[in-house]
Amino acid sequence: MTRRGARLSPARRRPRSAGTLQAQLYDRIRQAILSGALASGARVPSARAMALEAGVSRGTVDAAYARLSVEGFLVARGAAGTFVTTPLPIAAASAPAAPPEPPRKEPRARAEVRPFQVGVPAVDAFPVATWSRLLGRHARRARAGDLAGSDPCGDRALREAIAAHLAVSRGVVARADQVMITGGYHGALGLLARALARPGDGAWFEDPGYHRARAALELAGLRLAAVPVDAEGLDVARGAALAPRARFVFVTPSHQMPLGMALSLPRRLALLAWARGADAWIIEDDYDGEFQRASAPLPALKSLDDQGRVIYAGTFSKSMFPALRLGFLVVPDGARDALARVASLLHPAPLLAVQRAAADFLGEGHFARHVRRMRALYAERHGALARALEELSSPQLQVEEGTGGLHLVARLIGARDGEVVERASQLGLAPGALSSYQADPTEGRLDGLLLGFAALPASRARKAVHRLAQAIAPPPGLTPWRGPSPST
Amino acid sequence: MTRRGARLSPARRRPRSAGTLQAQLYDRIRQAILSGALASGARVPSARAMALEAGVSRGTVDAAYARLSVEGFLVARGAAGTFVTTPLPIAAASAPAAPPEPPRKEPRARAEVRPFQVGVPAVDAFPVATWSRLLGRHARRARAGDLAGSDPCGDRALREAIAAHLAVSRGVVARADQVMITGGYHGALGLLARALARPGDGAWFEDPGYHRARAALELAGLRLAAVPVDAEGLDVARGAALAPRARFVFVTPSHQMPLGMALSLPRRLALLAWARGADAWIIEDDYDGEFQRASAPLPALKSLDDQGRVIYAGTFSKSMFPALRLGFLVVPDGARDALARVASLLHPAPLLAVQRAAADFLGEGHFARHVRRMRALYAERHGALARALEELSSPQLQVEEGTGGLHLVARLIGARDGEVVERASQLGLAPGALSSYQADPTEGRLDGLLLGFAALPASRARKAVHRLAQAIAPPPGLTPWRGPSPST
Repeated sequence: MTRRGARLSPARRRPRSAGTLQAQLYDRIRQAILSGALASGARVPSARAMALEAGVSRGTVDAAYARLSVEGFLVARGAAGTFVTTPLPIAAASAPAAPPEPPRKEPRARAEVRPFQVGVPAVDAFPVATWSRLLGRHARRARAGDLAGSDPCGDRALREAIAAHLAVSRGVVARADQVMITGGYHGALGLLARALARPGDGAWFEDPGYHRARAALELAGLRLAAVPVDAEGLDVARGAALAPRARFVFVTPSHQMPLGMALSLPRRLALLAWARGADAWIIEDDYDGEFQRASAPLPALKSLDDQGRVIYAGTFSKSMFPALRLGFLVVPDGARDALARVASLLHPAPLLAVQRAAADFLGEGHFARHVRRMRALYAERHGALARALEELSSPQLQVEEGTGGLHLVARLIGARDGEVVERASQLGLAPGALSSYQADPTEGRLDGLLLGFAALPASRARKAVHRLAQAIAPPPGLTPWRGPSPST
Repeated sequence: MTRRGARLSPARRRPRSAGTLQAQLYDRIRQAILSGALASGARVPSARAMALEAGVSRGTVDAAYARLSVEGFLVARGAAGTFVTTPLPIAAASAPAAPPEPPRKEPRARAEVRPFQVGVPAVDAFPVATWSRLLGRHARRARAGDLAGSDPCGDRALREAIAAHLAVSRGVVARADQVMITGGYHGALGLLARALARPGDGAWFEDPGYHRARAALELAGLRLAAVPVDAEGLDVARGAALAPRARFVFVTPSHQMPLGMALSLPRRLALLAWARGADAWIIEDDYDGEFQRASAPLPALKSLDDQGRVIYAGTFSKSMFPALRLGFLVVPDGARDALARVASLLHPAPLLAVQRAAADFLGEGHFARHVRRMRALYAERHGALARALEELSSPQLQVEEGTGGLHLVARLIGARDGEVVERASQLGLAPGALSSYQADPTEGRLDGLLLGFAALPASRARKAVHRLAQAIAPPPGLTPWRGPSPST
């Protein structure tokens, strides 16, 4: 009785259209259209695919499609396929049984990279052909065992390739089983917070610092102490005074985000000593360690860690591309089991073929070649932007000396960065507001712009800078609908 | 001063070998080998790739490799490349500066699927060629904007394809922006727990139930009430009595995991009514809704949800393959913002190309075709296993009637399932122990085996069953090293 009773179908709940398979199919598709699940203008599956999907005959689908076409819901466009009509012939009375939920504005993937966008590498120069060849190769080569499952901490081949890469180019010595593969840096933060933090745990966070990591950690329930940075990077003495019992320190030692200085050697040693005494974890965010200006990149803080206090976080977002969403942690043995358990149950590593393709990208030298090419390209693009800014010589814009990485910092004089960023956005530009990286402005508000140059071709730098000048000092009357009132 | 001071290199810390780039490189590679970062037998990068990686000349690498070869660390094998020597010529005295950490036993990806493995679909029959063609296509077609970033909640194309699929085949009507893409079911649990649960929140969990989800939720800090299941599925009245203030109900309505019954219609309605009154979320785990035995699959519980209480969780692990690690949630508007924020900051969706390939796999009808073929194949494989078990007619094994899905359940008479599973594992088999799915055995311990048949070719069923019989009733003396003493 229970088996039969449970085999209800939505059609049974609407007696109006019950009875035949065709009527049920008609009803489901119609409701999907009315509810927006099948959007206006969307292509519906071919009759053949729909027949397979719905488990009915081709003729049943044809009949349902025909009825929906007659009623104006679908329109056939020959070889192009069958589409949901635009606009739909819907009266309010024909609203679906499900609660009519208002469509929302959805953040959609940007189709194009806008000038000055922060944190975006030269995606126009990424070797897409090589990468897609490797990815296709590993998807094709997958054996049954590879499809059946994979290590939630990451595939051995990639972990080995990363360990070898870090040993050679970042001075970090780690075994492959100390490397864990994550869903980019944010996936790594989710994993770390779940495995090692209890709600309310204290943490040092650089101020200014990477705002999205700050938001992520607050969302995960950590109490963040805003620890100032100066010319030597994170002020360890201030941190120790502000939050002596913190369990975590989040730090960008190679290239401070957003200001760009490196953490000095005395500070590195002081930080390691403090963490040892406080029994705290240091999370080293080495987000763009490959792109320091120096001829040989600075070794990672982790290379000085002989007490197993540093968890090194790396990402391929900058060195390859952000949408790859592939990152990794190098984990001291003391944190390894907790992290592995969370990875296995709540934060598994991504598709095996992606990991193996990345392993080959590293192991076959494509990675090193790409990074070397990007260093040269970024030097060129940085130069072009710096020259264009110099030509502009705006009294309101004070460009700081570059220290590599993917963006320049320029202080704003007599303007609020939030307002400039908003006007720039209307002009198609995407600089970052320095103040948004600041947690505690009591010692002086930071007003400035982060100007990403890595994805900005040198030939377009001048034009982008001229448009930026309009956003900084708009001619009177250009934006009359906003007026001079301050806003965020 | 600080910049210069910070630019230390690991070589500087070991004066013994400081001085030349070649000596530094030699030292780094040697230490990587000694520490296991470059494993014995591993191929090292070509001299050309290593030169790029380390930012030194080709000649420098050749010299370092030559020295390491002379010392027995590396061995050149012509065109095949250069490898770390096996075994290594290491005395205890040459241990690295880094703390010598003992190598650990690492769970490695299984190379082969073992008979009876639970939760593994027919990975031998997955259309790898089609899938890899789609994946390669989308990796190749990626434009700069696609590489620069993607929606952390999931790509629009896949969300639309899933919404259309669910409307047609599961009776679930949802807008694309209510669909969120996750790292499989476990990634979905991580996302849900972080977004909606506070530590200590109560939740109903089926008993017996999917043990890895139970472990995941306990790890995330939920207090789980073990709610019994009977022939009609989850016992809603017992749940209401056991944990009246629970904030979550985790349930497998289409095909209970592990026992296989469907949640009856009266229970579905009672559960929805209770959740409404208690202001609780129902998490519907529809892990294998495509593979119910019935000619038309049972609609999802979500299709009855007119109050926005049900969060539907789907996965492609069973309908495509587990290592894909791709799942999704259908989210009522009341939970959407919290989940989107956590996805953005702590649980981002995977690589865009994977999502777009999956969208095409659905949209071009490959998914429906594959599922239809698998239904037929699973009927065949189920039949072969059931016949082989019948032939065996072991008095200790009482096979329950199958209800579709990917495994059979057989009760064990006069044997402990944990012991049988351990002996079976030594014989190369991988049945599941029913008792491991049970949280609370006070009303009677469940002893039984879960026998996955989806990945077991019909031609191998008899042989596998005969080997299983040995594990159930081992001939005396077969495993003399263990003796008759009870163990887990």
